[in-house]
Amino acid sequence: MKAEIIATGTEILLGQTLNTSAHYLTGKLSELGIEVDYHTTVGDNRERVEQVLRQAISRSDLVLTTGGTGPTVDDMTKELVAKVLGLKLQLDPYSLEHIQHFFSSRGSVMPKTEEKEAYFPEGSKVLNNDHGTAPGAIIQHEGGTVVILPGPPAEMTPMFEHSVFPFLEKQVSINIRRMYSRVIKIFGLGESEIEQVLQDLMGNAQLGMTLLAKQSEMHIRLVVRTENEQEATALLDKTEQIIRERLGAKVFGINDETMLGIVNEAVKTRRLTISTAESCTGGLLGATLTQEAGSSENYLGGVVSYSNSFKEKFLGVNPQTLQTYGAVSSETACEMAAGMKERSGSDLAVAITGIAGPGGGNDEKPVGLVYIGLATPGGVQTSKFQFHGQRESIRQLSVMAALDLVRHYLLKVERSTL
Amino acid sequence: MKAEIIATGTEILLGQTLNTSAHYLTGKLSELGIEVDYHTTVGDNRERVEQVLRQAISRSDLVLTTGGTGPTVDDMTKELVAKVLGLKLQLDPYSLEHIQHFFSSRGSVMPKTEEKEAYFPEGSKVLNNDHGTAPGAIIQHEGGTVVILPGPPAEMTPMFEHSVFPFLEKQVSINIRRMYSRVIKIFGLGESEIEQVLQDLMGNAQLGMTLLAKQSEMHIRLVVRTENEQEATALLDKTEQIIRERLGAKVFGINDETMLGIVNEAVKTRRLTISTAESCTGGLLGATLTQEAGSSENYLGGVVSYSNSFKEKFLGVNPQTLQTYGAVSSETACEMAAGMKERSGSDLAVAITGIAGPGGGNDEKPVGLVYIGLATPGGVQTSKFQFHGQRESIRQLSVMAALDLVRHYLLKVERSTL
Repeated sequence: MKAEIIATGTEILLGQTLNTSAHYLTGKLSELGIEVDYHTTVGDNRERVEQVLRQAISRSDLVLTTGGTGPTVDDMTKELVAKVLGLKLQLDPYSLEHIQHFFSSRGSVMPKTEEKEAYFPEGSKVLNNDHGTAPGAIIQHEGGTVVILPGPPAEMTPMFEHSVFPFLEKQVSINIRRMYSRVIKIFGLGESEIEQVLQDLMGNAQLGMTLLAKQSEMHIRLVVRTENEQEATALLDKTEQIIRERLGAKVFGINDETMLGIVNEAVKTRRLTISTAESCTGGLLGATLTQEAGSSENYLGGVVSYSNSFKEKFLGVNPQTLQTYGAVSSETACEMAAGMKERSGSDLAVAITGIAGPGGGNDEKPVGLVYIGLATPGGVQTSKFQFHGQRESIRQLSVMAALDLVRHYLLKVERSTL
Repeated sequence: MKAEIIATGTEILLGQTLNTSAHYLTGKLSELGIEVDYHTTVGDNRERVEQVLRQAISRSDLVLTTGGTGPTVDDMTKELVAKVLGLKLQLDPYSLEHIQHFFSSRGSVMPKTEEKEAYFPEGSKVLNNDHGTAPGAIIQHEGGTVVILPGPPAEMTPMFEHSVFPFLEKQVSINIRRMYSRVIKIFGLGESEIEQVLQDLMGNAQLGMTLLAKQSEMHIRLVVRTENEQEATALLDKTEQIIRERLGAKVFGINDETMLGIVNEAVKTRRLTISTAESCTGGLLGATLTQEAGSSENYLGGVVSYSNSFKEKFLGVNPQTLQTYGAVSSETACEMAAGMKERSGSDLAVAITGIAGPGGGNDEKPVGLVYIGLATPGGVQTSKFQFHGQRESIRQLSVMAALDLVRHYLLKVERSTL
C-alpha cells in the first residue's frame, strides 16, 4: 500500500508551526508496514490545495490530510476532497449535535460558522473529535482511501490512535510482509559507548538496528521484516536479551515503557510513599511524578527550595552546611533529602540541587554540576553528576537521573526488606 | 517570488527523523518576503525524486532542496537536478581538494566514492561546507533558481546562513514587496470569540489576519505586504491598537513576548518576591517560573502540597477547611495562598488546587475545575476556572491562568502602592 501525507496550513508555510504531525503519522504507518512516499505541505490556498489533493489521490492508495477541518473560510479540506472525488457534502446530524454540545457544556452557544464542521463528503465514516470540535473522516472511494484529520496534534493524535490506526490495521492485515520492531531504552550511556558494545550486532541483514539519541535517553530500535510473526518475535527476544546482558540495568525499559511509568509502577507495587525537595529543577521532578493520573496514592508532595531561606525553613537544612559547603553540594543534597523525608513522613525522599546555568558556574562548580540525594529507610545516599547542555536540558537530565536513582534503588529492595 | 522546499531522505519517510529544515528555511525565506507555497518530502527513489523536482522547477521561481548530496547511491539530488534542467555534471576541482583535505586532516584517506560530492550541474555556484564534506550549490537557469543544500541541519543551517541568505537577499532587494508581520498574543478567549469581535478587520486586502490556536494561547498574526516599511508599521500599529481596545487586558503580549517573560519582568521591575503552593500542577508552576535564568532573585520557592497532609503541615491549611469544603475549593486555595505567603515571607503567593483528571471528577466538581488563590499585601483573592481537555493540558492551562492572574494584579499596582 502506497501512502502519502498532506498538511494544509499557511502557518506551517510561514515557518511558525513545525509540522510534527507528518512525522508522527509516518512513524505509525511504518509500524503497519505502510510505506509513505511523500509528505506535502501546502498553504490555505484553494487552487493549490485542490491540485495537491488531486495529484495525491491519483498516485497513492492512501492519502492522509491534516488541517483545514475547522470553521473558518480557510478551512477547505473536506470540501476539496469531495470535489476531487466527485462527491457531495452531506450534513452529519450526530456531529452537529456533538459540536453543539461542546459549546453548551462550556456555557456558550455554537456560532453559526461551526456548522460547517458537521458536513462531510457523502459515504464518509465520521471520526469523533474527543478533544475539539472538528471531526475527521475516512472516505473509501474507487479502491483508494482518504483520511481527513484535524490540524492540532492534541486533536489529531488521539483521533488517529483510536479510530484510524485500528481501521488501517484491518486493511493491511492480509498477506503483507509486516514490520516487527522493538525499542530498547537506555539511560546513562552515550551513543558511542553503546555503539562500541553492540557493534557486532549491527549491519545484520535480517535485523535492522538504529541508535536514536533522544533528549535524555538513548533508544535502540530493532526492526525485522518478515511474514512470520513467531520468527520475528524470537529474533527480537534474543537480541533484546543480548543487549540486556551487555548493558545491564542501564536498560530501563522497552517500547512504550517510560522511565516515569516504570518508577511510578515500582513505587506503587511496593506500596511506598515518596516526596521531593528541589532546587535547580524548580518543581519539575514533582511535575513529572504527577504527570500520570493516580500518582496521589504514592506521591505526597514536595518543597521547591529555590532560595536558601526555603532550604532552612521548609527542609531544616543547617545554615552552617549552606555556608561551609554551599547550596550545591553533596552535604546540602543529603540534608535536603533527609529533612524532606523526616518532615513529610514518606518512605523515600529525593532531593536535587545543582547549577542549571547559563550563569552561576565557576571552575570548581561548573554549570551542569548536580547533586541528587535519596533518603530511604536505610539512610541517605547522594550522587554527583556533571551534565552538559543548556539550562532546560540540564534540568530535564537532573529529573531523569533522579528517577533513575529511585529505579536502581527499588530494583534492589522489596517492600519486605524495608 | 514563489518558492518551494523539497526534502529528500527515506529516513524522514520512515518517521525516524523530523524534518526541521523545511521549518527553518521557511522562516528564513519569509523574513525576505519570499512566499513558500509547498513543502514536499520524498524518499530516495530515483523516479519519484525526479518527478518532484520536475514539478517544482516548472511551477516555482525558487526551489530549495535538502539532502541527497552525499557519496552513496541514494544521493542523487545534483544528478537529477542536472537532468531536469538539461545540464551536464562537471567536476569542481576546488571542492575535490576541500573534501580530500577534510579526510587527510582527520588522518584518513578520502574514499573513492566521495569524489561524487565534487560534481555539480554546469554553471553552479558551489557552496562550501564548513561542517562536513558535501558542498551545496546555487544554479540559476532560465529565470529560475535551484538551491541544493545538504541534509544534516548542522551542515545545512550554516551554509544557508552564510551563502544562500545573502545571495537571496540581493536577488529580492530590488523592487520587491517585503512582508511585515506582527503577532498579538491573547489568553482567556477562544477562537470563535475573537473572530466575532474582530470579524470586520478580517478579509482586508492590505492586511492579512490569521488566528492560530496555540496550546493555551490564541495568536493573531497580522501580515502586511508592501514596499514601504513606514506604511507597514503604521498599519500594524493601528491594527494592534484596535485589537487592544477591543480585547483589553486579554492581550498579554506581541511577537516574541511570552506570558512567563512578561510576568517575570513585571515581578522583577517591581522588586517583588513570589512563592507558590501547588496541588494538581505538582510543581509545574514552580518549574515554569524557574525556566529562565535569573529567576532566583524573585522566586523564593514553593510547596507541592499534593496530599492533604502536606497542605496542613507545610502550608497550615485548616483540616476543618479540607473536610468541609474539600481540597478543591475556593476556601482551600485561599488558605494555601495565605499560608504560603505567611510562611515564606514573600510579597506574593500563588496557590493552585484542582482536578486534572482523567479520574476524580463528579457532577459537582468536574474534571478541569481549578481554583487559583493569589495572596498579596492587600489580601487574598481566589478565582475559579473550568478547563477542558486532557490532564496535561488542564495542568498547563492552570499554570498559564496562574501567571495571568499575577499579570493582571501587577498591571494594577506599582511597587509604591504595595
